[in-house]
Amino acid sequence: MTDNQNLRSEDRNPETSDPVARAADLLKEHRHSIDRLDAILVYTLGERFKHTQAVGKLKALHDLPPSDPNREAAQIARLEDLSKQANLDPEFARKFLNFIIAEVIRHHKQYKS
Amino acid sequence: MTDNQNLRSEDRNPETSDPVARAADLLKEHRHSIDRLDAILVYTLGERFKHTQAVGKLKALHDLPPSDPNREAAQIARLEDLSKQANLDPEFARKFLNFIIAEVIRHHKQYKS
Repeated sequence: MTDNQNLRSEDRNPETSDPVARAADLLKEHRHSIDRLDAILVYTLGERFKHTQAVGKLKALHDLPPSDPNREAAQIARLEDLSKQANLDPEFARKFLNFIIAEVIRHHKQYKS
Repeated sequence: MTDNQNLRSEDRNPETSDPVARAADLLKEHRHSIDRLDAILVYTLGERFKHTQAVGKLKALHDLPPSDPNREAAQIARLEDLSKQANLDPEFARKFLNFIIAEVIRHHKQYKS
C-alpha cells in the first residue's frame, strides 16, 4: 500500500501529470539520446576518414585510381546486409554510403592534384 | 644479434618484403577497419532512427509540425563543435546532418499521411 501511494505521488509530479508536459519530457529524453548518438556518429566518421585518408595516400603513392568500383560494390552489398540486421532501410543505407564515398573521393582527388 | 636476425627474417616475409605487396597489405588492414566502422555507423543510425521515429509519433499525436527549425539550428551548431573536436570538416558534418534530417522528415511525413 505504501509502495502504491509512492507510485501515485510520483504520478502526481507536475512534470508528468499533464499529457502535453509528459510528451515534452519524452521528446526531451529522445533528443538527449539522439544528441549522444550524433556524437558517436561524428567521432566514428572522424576515425573512418582517418583510414580513408591513409588509403588515399597509399593510392596516390602507387598511382591507383581514386575510385574502386569492385570495392564499392562489395561495400554496398555488405551495408545492405548490415542494414537489414539493424532494421534500417537498405535503400537509405546505400544512399548513405554513396554520400560518404563522394566525400572520400573528393579527399582523394585533393591528394592527387 | 639473434633478435636482429629474427627481425630481418620477418622483413624477408614474402607478404611484406615487396613495397607493392606491403601497400596492398596496408590497404587491406585499413579496409577492414573501415568495414568495422561502417557496422558501428549502421547500427548507430538504426538506434538514432528508432528515437526519431518515437519523436515523429509524439509529434503526430500532439499535432506538432514535422520539422523544428530551432532544434535543427541547435543540432547543427552542436555538430560543428563536435566535428572540430573529432578533426572532421565542419562543412561535411553540416551536410551529413542535413542528409539524415531529410530522411527523418520523410519518415515523419509518412506518419502524418
